[in-house]
Amino acid sequence: MSTFDPIDHSHRRRNPLTGDWVLVSPHRAKRPWQGQVEKPQATESVAHDPSCYLCSGNTRINGEVNPEYTGTFVFTNDFAALMKDTPASGQSNDDLFTLEAARGTSRVICFSPEHNKTLPELSLSALEGVVQTWQEQVADLSKEYVWVQVFENKGAAMGCSNPHPHGQVWANDFVPNEVAKAEKNQKAYYEKHGSSMLLDYANKESVDGSRTVVETEHWIAVVPYWAAWPFETILMPKFTCPRLTDVNPEQRADLAVALKKLTSRYDNLFQCSFPYSMGWHGAPNNVDNTDHWQVHAHFYPPLLRSATVRKFMVGYEMMAEPQRDLTAEQAAARLQELSDVHYNESAG
Amino acid sequence: MSTFDPIDHSHRRRNPLTGDWVLVSPHRAKRPWQGQVEKPQATESVAHDPSCYLCSGNTRINGEVNPEYTGTFVFTNDFAALMKDTPASGQSNDDLFTLEAARGTSRVICFSPEHNKTLPELSLSALEGVVQTWQEQVADLSKEYVWVQVFENKGAAMGCSNPHPHGQVWANDFVPNEVAKAEKNQKAYYEKHGSSMLLDYANKESVDGSRTVVETEHWIAVVPYWAAWPFETILMPKFTCPRLTDVNPEQRADLAVALKKLTSRYDNLFQCSFPYSMGWHGAPNNVDNTDHWQVHAHFYPPLLRSATVRKFMVGYEMMAEPQRDLTAEQAAARLQELSDVHYNESAG
Ligand SMILES: O=P(O)(O)O[C@H]1O[C@H](CO)[C@@H](O)[C@H](O)[C@H]1O
Ligand SMILES: O=P(O)(O)O[C@H]1O[C@H](CO)[C@@H](O)[C@H](O)[C@H]1O
Repeated sequence: MSTFDPIDHSHRRRNPLTGDWVLVSPHRAKRPWQGQVEKPQATESVAHDPSCYLCSGNTRINGEVNPEYTGTFVFTNDFAALMKDTPASGQSNDDLFTLEAARGTSRVICFSPEHNKTLPELSLSALEGVVQTWQEQVADLSKEYVWVQVFENKGAAMGCSNPHPHGQVWANDFVPNEVAKAEKNQKAYYEKHGSSMLLDYANKESVDGSRTVVETEHWIAVVPYWAAWPFETILMPKFTCPRLTDVNPEQRADLAVALKKLTSRYDNLFQCSFPYSMGWHGAPNNVDNTDHWQVHAHFYPPLLRSATVRKFMVGYEMMAEPQRDLTAEQAAARLQELSDVHYNESAG
Repeated sequence: MSTFDPIDHSHRRRNPLTGDWVLVSPHRAKRPWQGQVEKPQATESVAHDPSCYLCSGNTRINGEVNPEYTGTFVFTNDFAALMKDTPASGQSNDDLFTLEAARGTSRVICFSPEHNKTLPELSLSALEGVVQTWQEQVADLSKEYVWVQVFENKGAAMGCSNPHPHGQVWANDFVPNEVAKAEKNQKAYYEKHGSSMLLDYANKESVDGSRTVVETEHWIAVVPYWAAWPFETILMPKFTCPRLTDVNPEQRADLAVALKKLTSRYDNLFQCSFPYSMGWHGAPNNVDNTDHWQVHAHFYPPLLRSATVRKFMVGYEMMAEPQRDLTAEQAAARLQELSDVHYNESAG
């Protein structure tokens, strides 16, 4: 019997943020694909689309008129999943039928007036403006809510229903599942090691380099050792920083650089507008001592082999555990080979 | 302020099998959909397709020739995610870089030679044959492995890469995430209540009826109180039964009836071949005392509004927690209204 080699042999890796495992089957990428292919994400050609309800000056479905905005533009979602005035529910005490009322709100963040510019195509100062808007939204909604989820669904393959580049922010009067796990596991790590899990991790990855996709002065993005999605990344500060609101102006400018480089590499991988869901996790507002917390962004992109062939997290993945077809190191190597200048900007 | 009503007001429900919550936003179904639409699943028209590598008598990609099978047909996956001879890995003792070798195998189960007959279109005796094959596979692979995952990915939207109706069985030398959670939570319930969680649940749902989709003499399928996918169901025995291999011939014949009715209602909902991932959970083989376990099947179908508009579990769902747009009771009511005879069989 040969000796174990993670590039040849199936194995599991453990995600220390969730406590869950992922099955890595590196030899499986060789199988032929005869299944569903996606439409490659069409690039929007016009900077202003008169039929787009997110473009500046246009009328939304509910009749409201968008201002002639020039930077970001934030408004409350016309079809929010949460309302701020939901009445309290009674306590349920049956372990099989447990329910609690949920309050919150949901806002849309248009990244810029330009209908055809996704994050990597924005200027650094416009990207800084996006980060600043995220910070302002977190600060504002944290006055009332224990959790504020900043995220972006990019591309039709990730359920995005309007091509105008935008993200969302949902505020909750509860701590959602994934955040509760990140809290619990970072806390346990801190109690065991006396240091912050993700600051330790950022430092170790920075030294190792094999999974690093982008590193700037203050930030590092890697394909995490425990990645589930083929080209998943985690973007982390290299300094102590429990929440997005703790990022100072200099670190913010540097974050804009990291975001631009990371999303440019993504687009360059298959020369398409690379779909993903991304979102920020920072210390929830019911945590007083945040020593164990580091803010971080997860990027979960679905594509596997090309602009049209995605990874499906289905039967085995839903019933048992996530499974991936290449190692984190192989995925990182693919992203490392690429330019960090977007293919639309590198002509000439 | 009005009083809380789960049909009007957002709330969270707790899944007692996983311990996770789901956000229910019943008013959200009203929002317009401008996003991706699926190709409705094409119905296969021929009973034998010469280019299909699963049809009887045809040659597979690796050159092997399928037998002229008449019932089910099982073979080892030509591109398995797991191998039986993976060498052992060393122990890793870094909390941030935890890896273990994984052994296993993966088989394909063709449900019948008929290329154009999905589960609801099979005869009851053919369906009984499918259940019997599941039982045989679990029994056989359980000799060597601690976990045997039986599942089906149905439809291109669920990553199925060959339209010939088939399922899979993956055997593992480890207990995967989702199974470990079901074990832990059923055990805790048993220790607290002195009875089996899912037998209690099946009995309560049978009495209540509002979430019941199919009930036969020995089996019940409901939209679980904590469903995440719009038309998710859980199929459970009404008798003590920790594993698929514990189902006796009479109960098996009745399971075929339940499966036919459930999948027929699914197809009838949008008059299409309804995509889903389904799979069985029973007591893993390292559990000696199985008093807390009841075998059950999960059905996770992606469609939400029509044969072409699905629910996307993306940004908020991936970063925070699953969110649904109608209550479990509303989904069950939709399925209850339909005939349990498949639309292809009810003509005339
Ligand atoms: O095994 P298949 O049908 O080729 O592949 C399908 O099911 C597998 C098990 O759920 C997944 O890992 C794949 O992503 C999916 O495309
Ligand atoms: O809010 P949108 O963009 O209309 O909707 C999209 O993102 C939401 C939040 O992740 C999801 O619940 C929806 O399923 C998805 O289609």
